[in-house]
Amino acid sequence: MEQQAAPGGFCPFCEENESSTPDEVYALRDDGSPPNGPGWRLRVVPNKFPALTGEGELIVSKEGMYDRMSGIGFHEVLIETPRHDLALADLSSMRIADLFRAVRLRFCEFKKDKRVKCAQFFKNHGYTAGASIEHSHSQIIAMPQVSKLLEEELAGAKEYFKRENRCVYCDMIDEETSAKVRVVVETERFIALAPYASRFAYETLLLPKKHNHRFEDTGDNTIDALSVILKQLLQKTNSILNNPTYNLILHTFSFEQGADDGYYHWHVEFLPMVNRVAGFEWGSGLFINPVPPEDAAKRLREA
Amino acid sequence: MEQQAAPGGFCPFCEENESSTPDEVYALRDDGSPPNGPGWRLRVVPNKFPALTGEGELIVSKEGMYDRMSGIGFHEVLIETPRHDLALADLSSMRIADLFRAVRLRFCEFKKDKRVKCAQFFKNHGYTAGASIEHSHSQIIAMPQVSKLLEEELAGAKEYFKRENRCVYCDMIDEETSAKVRVVVETERFIALAPYASRFAYETLLLPKKHNHRFEDTGDNTIDALSVILKQLLQKTNSILNNPTYNLILHTFSFEQGADDGYYHWHVEFLPMVNRVAGFEWGSGLFINPVPPEDAAKRLREA
Repeated sequence: MEQQAAPGGFCPFCEENESSTPDEVYALRDDGSPPNGPGWRLRVVPNKFPALTGEGELIVSKEGMYDRMSGIGFHEVLIETPRHDLALADLSSMRIADLFRAVRLRFCEFKKDKRVKCAQFFKNHGYTAGASIEHSHSQIIAMPQVSKLLEEELAGAKEYFKRENRCVYCDMIDEETSAKVRVVVETERFIALAPYASRFAYETLLLPKKHNHRFEDTGDNTIDALSVILKQLLQKTNSILNNPTYNLILHTFSFEQGADDGYYHWHVEFLPMVNRVAGFEWGSGLFINPVPPEDAAKRLREA
Repeated sequence: MEQQAAPGGFCPFCEENESSTPDEVYALRDDGSPPNGPGWRLRVVPNKFPALTGEGELIVSKEGMYDRMSGIGFHEVLIETPRHDLALADLSSMRIADLFRAVRLRFCEFKKDKRVKCAQFFKNHGYTAGASIEHSHSQIIAMPQVSKLLEEELAGAKEYFKRENRCVYCDMIDEETSAKVRVVVETERFIALAPYASRFAYETLLLPKKHNHRFEDTGDNTIDALSVILKQLLQKTNSILNNPTYNLILHTFSFEQGADDGYYHWHVEFLPMVNRVAGFEWGSGLFINPVPPEDAAKRLREA
């Protein structure tokens, strides 16, 4: 899935090594620096070993009793810094905001392609969280169908909205700000909380207080606020868990249009990989979390 | 979740250390050897740190906007051998059959408890597959509700049955034995195959050829045949993947009764932990598998 690099060896994501990646589709560059050379602070490039590609037609076919769909889509890598020695947590919140603005831009681009139904932004930090390249980066995979989990999440949110006439995430913000036990950080525009009955130890949800179902429609102020609270969360987590590996996942509405899509609320999921996933989880879809979210939130709050 | 032991240190699962576990609920013992002492070849004990316990009432309550259910159930450990130096793959198929017979027995026992809706048998082999104790063992968790994944699997199988008037697993056996490209081993009573579009590299499914939805109703001949094919599969996998860590999961019908439950077909899932799960998988519920099942089956077949 990702470009491989031996630890300590040549890194295709470092400045000066731009020719080792496919040509950039977007970059933040010093004035006058030409594409695919040095002088950048963020680069977005197609993944050299993509899970999906934009070539060809979207074809659904039969293979015996099974259904098959051609792997149409896009797989891009966001190289978050030219420096090999910096992690996302080390970047200023302004630089983290650059990353999320690039994500917004790429989402707007993918949305124009009628074959693309949704896109997934995610970051794998560290080997045990799935990163094959050490150099700080994240990824977007744009897909020809709504993913299984997004479909489930949208169905759940829609059902709640129908029943209660309110957004489940807005209700969660109300509930948690009054119960207070699972709040990790709260700012003017954001809340970070340890979700009730969460799957993973120290799992945290970053929710914008203003209801909006599409990340790509988010304003700069909200992106700035997300970057500030994410940096705080990364620092807190690093201090109590000793720089854990983690996954960071953006949950946002599909690209499909609908008059009734106001039931959803985009958010960011932060999953430190502290506990291991085992046979029980793979077999049941249920998760045994050794750290109650109330305890996790308290430790993170006080960090 | 599990009892901890320092690597190379004291092991609570070794013979002579029986007093370190809760009292056994079942064991295969030498004639005349008293419970909870040496002289056994298989022991089943309650987990010292259970995820669920049989104490108290099954209570469903509200906590703010959330629903809560008391953790009623059972969590048992099956210690597969008194010897610390043997893995499941090292045991004879007769000894492996002892394990599955014990699982059948415990399932029949759990089924009598009206609070229990389903049980999950699983094995975590090796640290990266979630095992906290090195000594070869597996586990059963009996739950007060049908697990998320079992519910999904039952719903999918039921839908297929309604549409096609046939069991989807029986159809899969027909399809795979005629296509041949994903078959790993076939015996008189069993088939091991690399599932179409499988999630994990070298993922394998063990399917009894005879249609039966409940593992606990399985006869001794089928359990013997399962043990033979599982040992073969473990040996093949160990030889080509250099003794990988793995999860082994039994998928069987819930304990609830129903006249129309013939649409399901119990099976065993074998998941070597070769690729790592990352942000894309956690965010989408989709899996990127670097080894096509057709290639995996070929390698395993020829091992």
